[in-house]
Amino acid sequence: MIVQKYKDMLQGKSVIRQLSEFATARGAEIGYENVFDYSLGNPSVPAPQKFTDTMIDMLQSRSPMELHGYSQSLGIPTVREKVAESLNKRFGMNYTGNHIFMTTGAAGAIAHAVRCVTQPGDEILTFAPFFPEYQPYINLTGATLKIVPANVEDFQINFEAFEEMLTDKVMAVLINTPNNPSGIVYTTETIQKLAAILTEKSKEYEHDIFLISDEPYREIVFAGTDAPYVSKFYSNTLSCYSFSKSLSLPGERIGYIAVNPACTDAEYITSMCGQISRGTGHNCPPSIIQLAVAEVLDLTSDLSVYETNMNILYKELTSLGFECVKPGGTFYMFPKTLEKDAVAFSEKAKKYDLILVPSDSFGVPGYFRLAYCIDTEKVERSLEAFRKFVKAEY
Amino acid sequence: MIVQKYKDMLQGKSVIRQLSEFATARGAEIGYENVFDYSLGNPSVPAPQKFTDTMIDMLQSRSPMELHGYSQSLGIPTVREKVAESLNKRFGMNYTGNHIFMTTGAAGAIAHAVRCVTQPGDEILTFAPFFPEYQPYINLTGATLKIVPANVEDFQINFEAFEEMLTDKVMAVLINTPNNPSGIVYTTETIQKLAAILTEKSKEYEHDIFLISDEPYREIVFAGTDAPYVSKFYSNTLSCYSFSKSLSLPGERIGYIAVNPACTDAEYITSMCGQISRGTGHNCPPSIIQLAVAEVLDLTSDLSVYETNMNILYKELTSLGFECVKPGGTFYMFPKTLEKDAVAFSEKAKKYDLILVPSDSFGVPGYFRLAYCIDTEKVERSLEAFRKFVKAEY
Repeated sequence: MIVQKYKDMLQGKSVIRQLSEFATARGAEIGYENVFDYSLGNPSVPAPQKFTDTMIDMLQSRSPMELHGYSQSLGIPTVREKVAESLNKRFGMNYTGNHIFMTTGAAGAIAHAVRCVTQPGDEILTFAPFFPEYQPYINLTGATLKIVPANVEDFQINFEAFEEMLTDKVMAVLINTPNNPSGIVYTTETIQKLAAILTEKSKEYEHDIFLISDEPYREIVFAGTDAPYVSKFYSNTLSCYSFSKSLSLPGERIGYIAVNPACTDAEYITSMCGQISRGTGHNCPPSIIQLAVAEVLDLTSDLSVYETNMNILYKELTSLGFECVKPGGTFYMFPKTLEKDAVAFSEKAKKYDLILVPSDSFGVPGYFRLAYCIDTEKVERSLEAFRKFVKAEY
Repeated sequence: MIVQKYKDMLQGKSVIRQLSEFATARGAEIGYENVFDYSLGNPSVPAPQKFTDTMIDMLQSRSPMELHGYSQSLGIPTVREKVAESLNKRFGMNYTGNHIFMTTGAAGAIAHAVRCVTQPGDEILTFAPFFPEYQPYINLTGATLKIVPANVEDFQINFEAFEEMLTDKVMAVLINTPNNPSGIVYTTETIQKLAAILTEKSKEYEHDIFLISDEPYREIVFAGTDAPYVSKFYSNTLSCYSFSKSLSLPGERIGYIAVNPACTDAEYITSMCGQISRGTGHNCPPSIIQLAVAEVLDLTSDLSVYETNMNILYKELTSLGFECVKPGGTFYMFPKTLEKDAVAFSEKAKKYDLILVPSDSFGVPGYFRLAYCIDTEKVERSLEAFRKFVKAEY
């Protein structure tokens, strides 16, 4: 019989998707170029030319059997080794290919990491504001996601609330830095303090507490920002990465888990992920994409537009009276709304063709998210709409 | 803490993988061309040239943003529509794009289909001989796979045993036709009888019993074989397909579920699969591969070599005294071993550089599987090895 649980989930409409659909419909009326659609976190810059060239070259020169054959279930060995080398070089780590498990993007990475270190019934903590997809990612594994309230002063970690919630039932902590939706990057001090608490509590509870570090925005960090490599500070770290944002390849579903070589049972974890795959039907990201990405590991798309856009918006919004913690990376910012009810605020903004996501689903009331992965020219044109909106409504 | 269940699974070594590793090691000694490796079911013919040409053309002419952008979570709408049209034309069905859920190969399809129609604790029946991966595919969802003993006369269905095992706890039946490992294709009569029993028992138990039809070998059917399209015979059918074999693209992880438009809750099932994906981390097959496959839906690789190989082997093996049900498709055959103990038989064959998979893990003792997806020239050279083996050992 049809499983009711999944049927019931169809009722829950994503606020972001609804806003995006509104933007598309409004675009059909007035031209999409006139809708200031800040709803969706899709990269707005192309993949590096070398990625395209590599794909074409492989298709022209390699045998289809070699190119499209089964990957081993943990990933193509040469690709895993190249990922390890690149991380070692950039972050001073000591990964080998055996510590890398290739995944279908960050979603695949988190699905495996969570199953690896939690049993149904265990708790996982994450910090508000947080990516709403974490709820189904985690709850469908049988573990329970609990949300530590935000530190609204600077969107670093609210350690007081965290220590209260870090009970014996917590087997993993999930962090996302640079952060969606706040754009904040956890500082070295934050990561050090987090690591110290996890180390102490692991001892006290006599079980490991794993840190699952979701890092799809790792390459999008703005000038002057302290952006530590999380795994360097805590051994029991599983780093979950996606090339979706750094190489602008969200549809090609490619990422990895990097297992800290000093973590508990480090030698088994990627193989365990391979076993987990048999139940999730994961069976590796596409071979040709693995091979192509391995050739551009140290490149990124031209990500500078995101910082340009952030600076324009930050300046204008703060001068209009918005309170906002300045982002250190990503293509998001998370200002305070000008009235308490973020949904009402977002609703009013629509009248000015400003599509802004209210913050409630991110676990903090009274804020809104701007995804400024759009053309700079459009960002500039949107400023007048913000001015009109604020003047007329507040 | 590390989850012991997955760590324990690392102990279970796949017989097929061990044999394949032996073949590789032996190949290093005597040259791989001299090892008659019938262990692995990997396609031995290239993808159609049009697939490669389409990929290159898209990479050269389309914008990277369009090509590599997020696919919707159920698949790219135009791709889903083209799959539906192709199936309707070929099999006289009435699918729309809404009945198609794009998956990362057959493994992804089965992982979603099972979660859609069974709860943890429910039973699923399949028929021996069966693909051993079904065990982890199903058991890791929480459902329990039970194996109906083989009908060794012709490897059609053992209906007597099936009816005994088809209790109220069974929520789905999983079939694989054309079959790995037997190469047998279920006849129209078999499918009709199966459908009649499922219909009757669904009424008796007052709940749906879904048919999950795993069809990666659907395009590899030999001359004169009756190969019905399963879903035409039973409304509550979820057809699970992979392009791995038909287009020789196993590494690119692309397939789909086609939901019979007359099945219970047909209008919800693909959307439910989208919800399931959020927990499995599936999130769609790669965009570029979806787009390229949609252009070659009615093509296949040149699959004729498999029938050529089958005929050569069938003739020689039967003349050597092997009992074998003649395959109607796939690139497998499943003869009876010449002694009761299939593992001992396979072990002796290794002395003649014949790599044959003993049948025990397929759920039937006393047989062996040949995966004849290798060059015909090598098949021909292997005949002398078979003759020597049989003459010396039996």
